[in-house]
Amino acid sequence: MRIEFMAIGNELLNGKTADSLGFWLSRELAKNSYQLSASHIYPDNSELLIEKIRFHLSKCDILILSGGLGPTQDDKTKDCLQRAFNKELVFNEQANQIIKNNQKRFGRENIDTQKLYSQIPQDFIAFANSKGMAPGLGYFHEQNRKLILAAPGVPREFHNMMQNEFIPFIKQKFPQEKRYRKAVNARTKLIPEEQIFTQLCPTLWKDLSQYGEVFSLPHVMNVDIGVYLEEDAQDLIDEKEKKIIKLITSSPLKEHIWQIGQIPLEEYIVQKATTKKITFSFAESCTGGLCASRITDISGSSAVFYGSVVSYSNEVKNKTIDVQNETMIASGAVSIETAKEMAVGVMEEIEADIAISLTGIAGPGGGSQEKPVGTVCIGSCNTGGNSWAKKYQLSGDRQQLKYRFSQLGLFRLLEEIENW
Amino acid sequence: MRIEFMAIGNELLNGKTADSLGFWLSRELAKNSYQLSASHIYPDNSELLIEKIRFHLSKCDILILSGGLGPTQDDKTKDCLQRAFNKELVFNEQANQIIKNNQKRFGRENIDTQKLYSQIPQDFIAFANSKGMAPGLGYFHEQNRKLILAAPGVPREFHNMMQNEFIPFIKQKFPQEKRYRKAVNARTKLIPEEQIFTQLCPTLWKDLSQYGEVFSLPHVMNVDIGVYLEEDAQDLIDEKEKKIIKLITSSPLKEHIWQIGQIPLEEYIVQKATTKKITFSFAESCTGGLCASRITDISGSSAVFYGSVVSYSNEVKNKTIDVQNETMIASGAVSIETAKEMAVGVMEEIEADIAISLTGIAGPGGGSQEKPVGTVCIGSCNTGGNSWAKKYQLSGDRQQLKYRFSQLGLFRLLEEIENW
Repeated sequence: MRIEFMAIGNELLNGKTADSLGFWLSRELAKNSYQLSASHIYPDNSELLIEKIRFHLSKCDILILSGGLGPTQDDKTKDCLQRAFNKELVFNEQANQIIKNNQKRFGRENIDTQKLYSQIPQDFIAFANSKGMAPGLGYFHEQNRKLILAAPGVPREFHNMMQNEFIPFIKQKFPQEKRYRKAVNARTKLIPEEQIFTQLCPTLWKDLSQYGEVFSLPHVMNVDIGVYLEEDAQDLIDEKEKKIIKLITSSPLKEHIWQIGQIPLEEYIVQKATTKKITFSFAESCTGGLCASRITDISGSSAVFYGSVVSYSNEVKNKTIDVQNETMIASGAVSIETAKEMAVGVMEEIEADIAISLTGIAGPGGGSQEKPVGTVCIGSCNTGGNSWAKKYQLSGDRQQLKYRFSQLGLFRLLEEIENW
Repeated sequence: MRIEFMAIGNELLNGKTADSLGFWLSRELAKNSYQLSASHIYPDNSELLIEKIRFHLSKCDILILSGGLGPTQDDKTKDCLQRAFNKELVFNEQANQIIKNNQKRFGRENIDTQKLYSQIPQDFIAFANSKGMAPGLGYFHEQNRKLILAAPGVPREFHNMMQNEFIPFIKQKFPQEKRYRKAVNARTKLIPEEQIFTQLCPTLWKDLSQYGEVFSLPHVMNVDIGVYLEEDAQDLIDEKEKKIIKLITSSPLKEHIWQIGQIPLEEYIVQKATTKKITFSFAESCTGGLCASRITDISGSSAVFYGSVVSYSNEVKNKTIDVQNETMIASGAVSIETAKEMAVGVMEEIEADIAISLTGIAGPGGGSQEKPVGTVCIGSCNTGGNSWAKKYQLSGDRQQLKYRFSQLGLFRLLEEIENW
């Protein structure tokens, strides 16, 4: 079965806004054992959209549209759907109920909006919008077994409509054959993809491919390596999974693997720390709070994360977390010595089990011959009395470097937790 | 002229990875006065890719591809290009030089990699890759004036190849007619899009559309409203821009406008604070360092941002920034009173001109009847001795709420700076 996605909006092509819905949809479909076959972005051009709606629907079973359902005059999706299928615009009681409910919920009753939204193309279905005003639209062609669905482009409206309305509707109209799927995934750190397959494990790709479709996906200082499995029975999946894990963990890649699974680093850290009842804190300079922000994205992090000092200026390093001015003068604010004192200092200020510190140069200014942009020192200390620090040299622009630095800090935190 | 983009990779459709290159490319093209016409994502399926390369190139002038140029066996782009244009694979001296240089630069000499990359389809051009191993590939059909360009999918390799190689090549082969373009943009805060055009300014859209194509783009607690201008002369743009700004700033929308322009909020704050020589700090609870991290994304922020305390636990609120335990017991950690004490406390700890505090409930747990998930109190204080706090109620999931809370904090900071 082919499912395609079309995001609509000039702003998605002229550099103003990034489409986030295509990726979200691909995950949501995968969770429900469907697979997105292709994804497209087009501008608000009615003639083009009508042509593309017809073309893509001729090539797939389900076409999902986002955007252009709002009240402003660049919202052209309803008009395009009507014209693409040669339908009249008619009053629809379901759409009328939806818009009346939404207006009541928001306390914004307006007769023009109600009129606008209660008119939909003939034979179309209106879908409830629990987070916004405009109803979703759908049309199912029984004979050809083709389905088109259109949701608003505002992310939370799109997400909710997809989960509460569209996915159940798709499941009803396109029930799935019973297939079992799993991506067996090993997450590695601090080794480039090329090195893995040429030097470290030259036969790994071939060895893995006997089990299914192999993948290798480089992320930030992390490569995900594994196999997509698809079988008729769960025990076939389980059996192959065991063999794949054994193959990978007995290869020289072993020492670079930090997780068998797909859990994001932040979430993995919170899980491990929660299980082991370990608390932690950060002293962040160059990352400016990014480590703390990434950890607090995870629900439940308050049980293990106590707090953080963003010591951006040297005064804060000295006053709040007690880094000696002599140390910063002698070795520099970006140094192993300062990183160690930051970790020890934040440990004294915020009494957690582990403290991680980061001090570096994210650029574009501030670099020198001796300490170029991309230099970072990561420090750690724990209630066992061990303190540690190491210097790294990375490359990238300011935001990339901030993220890479935070990866190093979080990888160090994970090591401290694993070795606890 | 039509430019289309094709991102290639199973991982971009199965929920593993989000394509970031399409959006980046749209911005980069816009900076150079080109416009992306459409964007597509396809899986690593050779037959499909060959069909789509031919199809899209038949509909546009320039087709840009990302991904599938690496060394692993799911990298199929070179093979597909060769087959799509019925070319032989031949040794190319330029490609050979590029790969030899890259291997030397990375200190990874390998004869197999060199062989692999020095073979490219006949009549194709090899482009240097200053950030990675694989050369880029291009083919320009002189008679049809059609150009296809393929770069690696790793973001920094793609970015550098686009800026240093592809864009100059495009400019050379497709010199632009001299047209002047500008998006005149007003950024508004804390008012929903629908309310702007139905209640606040019902004729604004129509009034603006006399100047060009109107847009209205809702972001997080911020709607961008304006007009795309395209003229033959710069003074025509300037003249229309003045009229548009006058129209918008004399409408009732005026009090919601925080910027005429397109600068991100973080950068705008750093600019304004730098000009006025104002320093600031944060005390963040629910946002967990996100305000500080957003500000430190901006180069030059160290001149105005001193530091931040992420007081996630009540112990840190009390010990580091001196919030009274009695206040937290009597009014709660999420309260106007606590927000005020956090702002005053961080001001004493980090001696900046302005302090902003945030305490709230990002959920999904931790809410109550009286203070549901989405409750947040924003506080501020300044060296003038004024302290202020206000309670808000927002909706969204945990990460949305963190971001929305940080928007409220940064909008408050901007107000403090503007009123300085």
